[in-house]
Amino acid sequence: MAKRNVIVGQSGGPTAAINSSLAGVYRTARERGYKKIYGMIHGVQGLMEGKYIDLSEHIQNGLDEELLKRTPASYLGSCRYKLPEIHKDKETYDKIFKILEELEIDCFIYIGGNDSMDTIKKLSDYGMLTGSDIRFVGCPKTIDNDLALTDHTPGYGSAAKYIGTSVKEVIRDGASMKNKNGLVTVIEIMGRDAGWLTGAAALAEGEDCPGPDAIYLPELPFDVEAFEKKIEMLLKAKNSVVVAVSEGIHTADGTYVCELGMSSDFVDAFGHKQLSGTATYLCNLLSSKLGCKARAIEFSTLQRAASHSASRVDILEAYEVGGAAMKAADEGDTGKMVVFVRTSDDPYQCGTEIKDVHKIANEERLVPRNWVNEEGTYVTSEFLTYVRPLIQGDVSPIMVDGIPRHLYKPGYYDLLK
Amino acid sequence: MAKRNVIVGQSGGPTAAINSSLAGVYRTARERGYKKIYGMIHGVQGLMEGKYIDLSEHIQNGLDEELLKRTPASYLGSCRYKLPEIHKDKETYDKIFKILEELEIDCFIYIGGNDSMDTIKKLSDYGMLTGSDIRFVGCPKTIDNDLALTDHTPGYGSAAKYIGTSVKEVIRDGASMKNKNGLVTVIEIMGRDAGWLTGAAALAEGEDCPGPDAIYLPELPFDVEAFEKKIEMLLKAKNSVVVAVSEGIHTADGTYVCELGMSSDFVDAFGHKQLSGTATYLCNLLSSKLGCKARAIEFSTLQRAASHSASRVDILEAYEVGGAAMKAADEGDTGKMVVFVRTSDDPYQCGTEIKDVHKIANEERLVPRNWVNEEGTYVTSEFLTYVRPLIQGDVSPIMVDGIPRHLYKPGYYDLLK
Repeated sequence: MAKRNVIVGQSGGPTAAINSSLAGVYRTARERGYKKIYGMIHGVQGLMEGKYIDLSEHIQNGLDEELLKRTPASYLGSCRYKLPEIHKDKETYDKIFKILEELEIDCFIYIGGNDSMDTIKKLSDYGMLTGSDIRFVGCPKTIDNDLALTDHTPGYGSAAKYIGTSVKEVIRDGASMKNKNGLVTVIEIMGRDAGWLTGAAALAEGEDCPGPDAIYLPELPFDVEAFEKKIEMLLKAKNSVVVAVSEGIHTADGTYVCELGMSSDFVDAFGHKQLSGTATYLCNLLSSKLGCKARAIEFSTLQRAASHSASRVDILEAYEVGGAAMKAADEGDTGKMVVFVRTSDDPYQCGTEIKDVHKIANEERLVPRNWVNEEGTYVTSEFLTYVRPLIQGDVSPIMVDGIPRHLYKPGYYDLLK
Repeated sequence: MAKRNVIVGQSGGPTAAINSSLAGVYRTARERGYKKIYGMIHGVQGLMEGKYIDLSEHIQNGLDEELLKRTPASYLGSCRYKLPEIHKDKETYDKIFKILEELEIDCFIYIGGNDSMDTIKKLSDYGMLTGSDIRFVGCPKTIDNDLALTDHTPGYGSAAKYIGTSVKEVIRDGASMKNKNGLVTVIEIMGRDAGWLTGAAALAEGEDCPGPDAIYLPELPFDVEAFEKKIEMLLKAKNSVVVAVSEGIHTADGTYVCELGMSSDFVDAFGHKQLSGTATYLCNLLSSKLGCKARAIEFSTLQRAASHSASRVDILEAYEVGGAAMKAADEGDTGKMVVFVRTSDDPYQCGTEIKDVHKIANEERLVPRNWVNEEGTYVTSEFLTYVRPLIQGDVSPIMVDGIPRHLYKPGYYDLLK
């Protein structure tokens, strides 16, 4: 049977590498002889509203492909949409499959994290139940690095590189300032449940930098009093202390640290309960208890969008994994996700395999306890050996007039409206 | 008379370019035959405690010099110290001059902003009064770009480049997300009185990016109601709105926007009045009034420390201005600061001149009213024509194991303690 068409979507929080995977899917689909390669706008949610594009109008040549690899955020737009349970709402599935049939789709590739793999799982299940020939394959993506069964996820390496670089710059900045009672900088890093990103703060450490003074992952309970004592001790030895904390750190009883700051009448001028950030809370605590100067820094969206400092390994692997997902679908796999299997740390060697998405969707992979020190205040050398290969090499931005250029075609922003 | 020694210090908030000026001072002092080139640790404050280093132990070869140019924060450590009025406290001056005489100093170079130029002014005044031969020359530095009499200041270009790049990445990120009631991102940028940095958010604008939707500088009074209406209107036309605001925006009566959020009983868990950030306040306002999703991003220290994305023009000019300050002192100038004089925007041409520091110290240069649109919500093309040349070109970081390398010598961090 002649090959027909492919559709690809992006879902969940963006990364600096997610568009490289899109480029990889596109390239392999072209090479393998598919006619049309469609892109869903805002994932499966947009698809259900009939929103999609013909990717050949967006990736017209090699330069477009290179620009796409360097473009942050989800080029196709993203969504956070969970499909209903099949037995509860067949209509939704019928609707999606009807659209896919109208578009003559053979392969459906979805680039995303845990929740997005739930979409692949459900669609492939429904396809199986109804005898559809469409293959559904997932392509991993998340800065959180928390997908099961894979050594790591595309997007993590670039975020880790950005975090290591920025933490190192902040350490220098802090050390250069003179503060009478000492300065504590608390850096808040993404990752509500998994500490992979926060642990990457240790990448700042090197021959020219002592690295952060402490790192707190969300996998371990956070003891506010022990934290305070630790900082007090550190301030006796040095003038500037830098600490990295996950946004998701919580006390032993499960209360998020960012919730601790709220007394019952802690409302803003609009009468709403207001949640300060974790770092802000800890800074208020420290300056109040220890009398030191304390500043909070949130890396916020920057850590997932900073294409300008992407990791070459990450961008190339993201491209590779996109191609591998397309290849798998082309060769008949469905209900699968591409994973990384690392065979060596040094020299770094890593290949791809195909795994059952049912074992991946909605699962979470956390930092192992033995990759954090006894005290729970820093990652071990095993952690660094693991992450170091993923941040190697650069992808020079294509600079136009002093600013990195991203892929753009006329009317692009209107597509995402 | 044979040339003796030079001493150089850094003061005020660091920038990505301040160490390039230090390298420039060192190189020119060497070339002009000075014996020792000392660096004050933590500026004049450290000097008074006898803290200084012999820079030849830190800049030993060409590679050290290149690393220094790429090292963020103040390599020598900084201070925020204002010298007393001469007539009120001669002792302080006698103490400093005694140290300078002991070190056989001919030239005193200070790299800093408005407050640091006050130090040059007072020391040169005192030198004049007492018939000292020591020459005191200032080398401009500040990301705020608010020094008088100079076209711009070293450090500003790199910060502006980082801001333009990051705002562009955030705009992509926002546009890619799907939000039912729209998403507003408020980015808070440094510059309490001067809007040069905030205006640089407009650099995100280009053929591939619409740029931020509004920009609010601290030079103009901020009207909260008009802001709310503007955002409401913007949300009707698009799903993602991105706004850049200065940390220093304030209402017509002078109240900072970040102070507006505080009702009288707005205290944190420690019973302290807490000042939320400007962006956080505005986000709470918008989500509460308009029902949209709103996220606050503070570029914080990152915007002044991001050496990894420095502007080549900025780093080279910072080097040049360090050399020019040293040259001026060598040739007998005192009580002076080096300034930039731009002779052409396109092609960009800019030279240095020497100006009287009395006309610069404690003065502030603001964004002209006619470089902001009538409504007060965006910078004009004149602003962009001005800033664009300053962000051109890159300084490739020297990468070691995936992270930029900075200059480091054994015991370095102990020096700054």
